[in-house]
Amino acid sequence: MSDRKQFRTLAQPEAAHDAIASLSMRAAPEEVRVPEASGRTLTDRIDATLDVPGFDRATVDGYAVAARDTFGADESSPARLELAGEVHAGESPTVALETGECIEISTGAVVPTGADAVVMVERTDRDDGEILVRTSVAPGDRIMAAGTDIAAGERALGPGTRLSAREIGLLSALGVESVSVVGRPTVGIISTGEELVRPGEPLASAKGEIYDVNSHTIAAAVAEAGGEPRLYEHVGDDYEAMERVLREAATECDLLLSSGSTSASAVDVIYRVVEEAGELLLHGVAVKPGKPMLVGRIAESGYVGLPGYPVSALTIFRSFVAPAIRKAAARPPPESATLIGEMAVDERYSEGRLRLMPVGLVERGEPDETGDTPTQEHTQPSTERPLVYPVDKGSGATTSLVEADGIVEMPPEIERLDRGQQVTVRLFSPGIRPPPVFGIGEDDPAFSRLLDRIDSPRYLALGSREGVRRLRNGVPDVALTVESYAGDVEADLLGSWERRWGLLVPQGNPEGVAGIVDLVERSLRFANRPRTAGLRRSLEEAIETLAESRAVTVGSLTDAIEGYDATHRAHESPARRVLGDTADVALGLEATARSLEMDFLPVGTERLCLLAQPERRSKAALGRLETALIDSEAVFDSLAGYRLIPADQS
Amino acid sequence: MSDRKQFRTLAQPEAAHDAIASLSMRAAPEEVRVPEASGRTLTDRIDATLDVPGFDRATVDGYAVAARDTFGADESSPARLELAGEVHAGESPTVALETGECIEISTGAVVPTGADAVVMVERTDRDDGEILVRTSVAPGDRIMAAGTDIAAGERALGPGTRLSAREIGLLSALGVESVSVVGRPTVGIISTGEELVRPGEPLASAKGEIYDVNSHTIAAAVAEAGGEPRLYEHVGDDYEAMERVLREAATECDLLLSSGSTSASAVDVIYRVVEEAGELLLHGVAVKPGKPMLVGRIAESGYVGLPGYPVSALTIFRSFVAPAIRKAAARPPPESATLIGEMAVDERYSEGRLRLMPVGLVERGEPDETGDTPTQEHTQPSTERPLVYPVDKGSGATTSLVEADGIVEMPPEIERLDRGQQVTVRLFSPGIRPPPVFGIGEDDPAFSRLLDRIDSPRYLALGSREGVRRLRNGVPDVALTVESYAGDVEADLLGSWERRWGLLVPQGNPEGVAGIVDLVERSLRFANRPRTAGLRRSLEEAIETLAESRAVTVGSLTDAIEGYDATHRAHESPARRVLGDTADVALGLEATARSLEMDFLPVGTERLCLLAQPERRSKAALGRLETALIDSEAVFDSLAGYRLIPADQS
Repeated sequence: MSDRKQFRTLAQPEAAHDAIASLSMRAAPEEVRVPEASGRTLTDRIDATLDVPGFDRATVDGYAVAARDTFGADESSPARLELAGEVHAGESPTVALETGECIEISTGAVVPTGADAVVMVERTDRDDGEILVRTSVAPGDRIMAAGTDIAAGERALGPGTRLSAREIGLLSALGVESVSVVGRPTVGIISTGEELVRPGEPLASAKGEIYDVNSHTIAAAVAEAGGEPRLYEHVGDDYEAMERVLREAATECDLLLSSGSTSASAVDVIYRVVEEAGELLLHGVAVKPGKPMLVGRIAESGYVGLPGYPVSALTIFRSFVAPAIRKAAARPPPESATLIGEMAVDERYSEGRLRLMPVGLVERGEPDETGDTPTQEHTQPSTERPLVYPVDKGSGATTSLVEADGIVEMPPEIERLDRGQQVTVRLFSPGIRPPPVFGIGEDDPAFSRLLDRIDSPRYLALGSREGVRRLRNGVPDVALTVESYAGDVEADLLGSWERRWGLLVPQGNPEGVAGIVDLVERSLRFANRPRTAGLRRSLEEAIETLAESRAVTVGSLTDAIEGYDATHRAHESPARRVLGDTADVALGLEATARSLEMDFLPVGTERLCLLAQPERRSKAALGRLETALIDSEAVFDSLAGYRLIPADQS
Repeated sequence: MSDRKQFRTLAQPEAAHDAIASLSMRAAPEEVRVPEASGRTLTDRIDATLDVPGFDRATVDGYAVAARDTFGADESSPARLELAGEVHAGESPTVALETGECIEISTGAVVPTGADAVVMVERTDRDDGEILVRTSVAPGDRIMAAGTDIAAGERALGPGTRLSAREIGLLSALGVESVSVVGRPTVGIISTGEELVRPGEPLASAKGEIYDVNSHTIAAAVAEAGGEPRLYEHVGDDYEAMERVLREAATECDLLLSSGSTSASAVDVIYRVVEEAGELLLHGVAVKPGKPMLVGRIAESGYVGLPGYPVSALTIFRSFVAPAIRKAAARPPPESATLIGEMAVDERYSEGRLRLMPVGLVERGEPDETGDTPTQEHTQPSTERPLVYPVDKGSGATTSLVEADGIVEMPPEIERLDRGQQVTVRLFSPGIRPPPVFGIGEDDPAFSRLLDRIDSPRYLALGSREGVRRLRNGVPDVALTVESYAGDVEADLLGSWERRWGLLVPQGNPEGVAGIVDLVERSLRFANRPRTAGLRRSLEEAIETLAESRAVTVGSLTDAIEGYDATHRAHESPARRVLGDTADVALGLEATARSLEMDFLPVGTERLCLLAQPERRSKAALGRLETALIDSEAVFDSLAGYRLIPADQS
């Protein structure tokens, strides 16, 4: 393995910004049709080449007159003018106006020669062939003179103008058909790594294959920043092919991006190509995530090597690369939005690097007016400020991407943030709001469906135990837990339901499993849930009962179960192990057995309780959640082994 | 002409919102590939159907071990393990681990059976075929367990989730190739009016033709709101064709828009089709602009008739229609942004309708620290609040579109806003900032080019007199004026230049015009500039001189000039009259004669002065403007008859 000496002295974040700014990634200007030009930026000034309107234009329906013929006219003594003709929008006037005459005219029509005003039809009457004008008008009245809007030679739009509907309107008025706009930089995205598979293709997990997350994520982020993403063939770890693709892409793109290969040799190839065909500007930055960032040039193209983990890659792309692409594309700086929040928990970090910490937000709602709930100090809503909690499932987790609302920067010299401390959150976009409801707890298919009734809820299925623990610490609004943990926190019960659980085996039950006793007594590979899960707690209770009945220790039974400690995160995961034939029996729900078409051996029924922070009861989404529960018969009917417990029985 | 009785009782704006909200314009869901799904909104919940990662994954380069084999190991007494094989990312492990063994493993590779931890390579040494492990690790160390990121059966994204790079990352991780998203409502745009010409086609101004502004403007605004615009053939005033297009479009679109035809008969056709094939919900709304709004249904499609003037059409579209399209497209409500400003002028409006008044903004900068400039009360920067001035060139003006930054709502009961009064401005988009520099004054091609050096300046070429007047009233930052008006305001001189002016005639001077005397003495059609223009002022001075030499009145001379009062707005407009043969001689600049390839008869040279509000001198853009002037030799050299006056001579 290569000695990565380049990481020994890390560049400061400012140096990375400077290095990326020094890459010239500006694309050639592009000629686009005006209707397609929205969102683009003009390269050149546009002067009007015609008058708008191009003629003196009537602004009302009425009669074109010589103003002096109306002087002195009013309701009682109208001016009497001879009707000499008519002119409509889109027609050339066929007659010129003589003294004592008028010409009928439509809105938008050309004011005929000799006329210098228009009288609204409402102020006139018709009397045989004559028109009675019951008002006096001044020269210019109800006429939009040629060039009033914009006149030939005038500066219409300057270079650098970002085009929207408004500017498209002005360009249309000038008859402009196409304009020269700042080109979008072409950004090549190169994915490396033998283990990466394009989404949609079959995945061989046993070979350690994973779907390629970064290519599409970074492509979408490039497009959001105003670049034109171009995905390059997946080159695996064939180093000759990789070198060929890199050199080729460098001739086709304004910027190349790759995200850190897991293979040290792949990094070496990139490093070598940059050194041979271009220039290495920087390698390694004192920022978390993102230490192994590489900035350089390959031929005429810029190159930035992003970290490999998706969250790290996107964070570094957003902080360092996107601003440069935006600038090259002449996009305005991203509408950054920040808010002040209050840390919900303590956080420590002391590696001496700038940390870009992804965080989630939760709104605290109004304090409970009834005052009948003892308020714990740390949940007291002291202000309107949202709570801020770090989202860190490890850099490898793509779910962190969607569970965070923004970034808190921890400068290198700050080693701790205390609960209650104020922090500034840089939101991922200005439109981001804390979710209307934030829950943590048991992974449950019925609750997944209930959440569909709320707009943009956030729910972390970290298990019953964790839900209750965090609810106690005042972070989420609600926790979903099995009944046995429900007493560990003071909370309001929003509702409860039962679900039948047991053992899941392949269709037809080939091993002839009868129940838990077989797990202990026979050599069956078992797939379990982790200790944090309510299902696991229910299984433990069943095993305790068995141990009691046999007068043996619980440990002696669990030790006899092969795979008892091999736990799987979500409610379906153990069952899928059975389907994938890496286990014979799975702990799971009857509903899961039904949906995955497996056989189900019932063991028991467990009750789930949806608990709410009493201080947050005023949040509107909690009310919607309660209502959703009441109206949820269809949800519970659709899931095998489920039963909603009516409010008066819970 | 039809009696528009429908306008007699106007609906309140809320009723219009309700009527439009009642139109069902939701499109069918659409299946899109994940890489193209950015910005779209999920219709359905997406649950994970696989574990991510799908296997226990090494998170570092090192050695897979059984943790218990390392217990007690440290730097000085390493555990000695036999190297039993290796496994890289993207490979299936070929061996299982036995007690006392280790297996070399790469980041991202599958942890082999029998191993329950990984030791970082940095904490090991190689000794022949054996590996010295210099640390003790716990089970699970440096392993990301299968399903840790997201597990099969877990709720990944809820219905209604708006997709961005982050969600695309998560979907990619799950191997999802395409998703069902909320469809974009198809919005048909029908343009009517015999006088409308599509931009790019030739225009016959003499027939009163104008370019069709609304079609492209509204199409761009529809796309911005998340709709799919569809432009229908221009149907002119052929009423049968119009009816056919309306009925056809109604079967193809979720919503139809037309903008008010100038022709009453066209309105009647639309009215009739709506009544026959659908339902009329509302006609006429108490709002300015936009009184003649029509809301209804044609077959299954909604229909909204917008006002005809572009500014009115866009304002009504934005306020009433865009929110409904956004909702149907499941776009989040537009990021609205408001700011508090201070009226720069008095404004009256008393028609008893809600007025949506387009306004411009100007920032006042810091007060001049030197204090040597007498500060007029109304320009005193009392706060940081920007000044707000109404932009109203008449609803027919497309330029108002780009000269405004937002809308101030004047409720029907408010008849006046006083200078200095605080008002809330609803910005057209949250990214809008007051322009860095705002100028008013003479229309001058050299200044147009100088402005190109400033990012997004705003300049209204309303003439020298108006520039000076408004500078005195404290609205713009700078005014460009001919010298004779410069003394009317206390201001700082940023720079000055000269331009040669005279009479412009067709190439070869077919009428043999020699000078101003010919205008008076011969029957020549003259094209003049308005009184607000500096050029006109210079012409008046020349005529005064002539009158003095002849001992006659000025009036007797100007009365003798045919077309003396027929004025044209911009510096090129009179010349273009000559080119269009509606005049023989034009007032204009030598530079204009050169650029339009006309003959030029010099009369004089006038000096232009660029004046700045002394209180605004601290604005950065004014400094940039001064610098641009100093570096502007190329600009002045490129324009015939121009000369920059060095700072020490001005």
